[in-house]
Amino acid sequence: MDRNRIRPSVSRELALWLLLMRTARVIGRARERELLDGTVSAQGFAILLTILRQGSRATPASISRETVLEPNTISQQLTRMEKDGLVSRVRDLERRNQVRIEVTEKGYQGFLEAAKRPITKTIMSVLNNEEQQMLWGILAKLRSKTLDELGANSKTVYPPAKLSGTE
Amino acid sequence: MDRNRIRPSVSRELALWLLLMRTARVIGRARERELLDGTVSAQGFAILLTILRQGSRATPASISRETVLEPNTISQQLTRMEKDGLVSRVRDLERRNQVRIEVTEKGYQGFLEAAKRPITKTIMSVLNNEEQQMLWGILAKLRSKTLDELGANSKTVYPPAKLSGTE
Repeated sequence: MDRNRIRPSVSRELALWLLLMRTARVIGRARERELLDGTVSAQGFAILLTILRQGSRATPASISRETVLEPNTISQQLTRMEKDGLVSRVRDLERRNQVRIEVTEKGYQGFLEAAKRPITKTIMSVLNNEEQQMLWGILAKLRSKTLDELGANSKTVYPPAKLSGTE
Repeated sequence: MDRNRIRPSVSRELALWLLLMRTARVIGRARERELLDGTVSAQGFAILLTILRQGSRATPASISRETVLEPNTISQQLTRMEKDGLVSRVRDLERRNQVRIEVTEKGYQGFLEAAKRPITKTIMSVLNNEEQQMLWGILAKLRSKTLDELGANSKTVYPPAKLSGTE
């Protein structure tokens, strides 16, 4: 079928979501490249942050929820990270059929090192302080509305809806 | 190692990127759910849009570039979509070692149907017109800066930097 001359049209809202997704991905790529010579990957960093934040509540399921990554992806990443000595799986003493995830000393040092890399700061510096705050507020609104639509709990999300909640 | 009491800190810029990525992903999930009973997946839709836009220039590599998805992901998706009868691979008559991708009639109908689904509109409706325009401008700035940092060409990106460029 010859569709060479078709000009497909999508709504502004769909295009805005595509722009959102692709901008996030392309920043992710810059982040991956920056971390190529480190001990921790871009996705690994996000997972370590989640485990450190959740402490003794960190399980594959809770990490999947917070990062909005598929359980499958988390499982593969954790296997690789365990092999690299960044995390370890610990059988939960209270709920014996549950596995908790802990960060090792090597994982923690890798996290600290990756947190210092500058590319995200460099990229975000094209926005002034007011624009960064506006972006934060707009994203929090979109996330909250989407979680409502999905019937999902939005109480334990991270980053928090208010910018002041970080650092 | 007991890291239960560590409160990990990340810069505001890193947190803002995480928020961006996760907001995009959670909207993606709503979009996936909305398309569960359709012929086209959320990612399939983005790929069909790209092929229709690029016309006879559409190859796996060009689709990967525009969607900011890994070549590997595109390859897997195209295989599945070909099996589903949504796209077909065509050997390029001019450059014989190249494969072009075309959308089939079934793929085109699936694209049109998926383009009409309302969830993205519903979600974006929490933002007024001015906020949508602000978000668009901010994202375009971030994307352009990131592509500069990556040394990548930003001339052929989609969606375009100017909101008026769509529809």
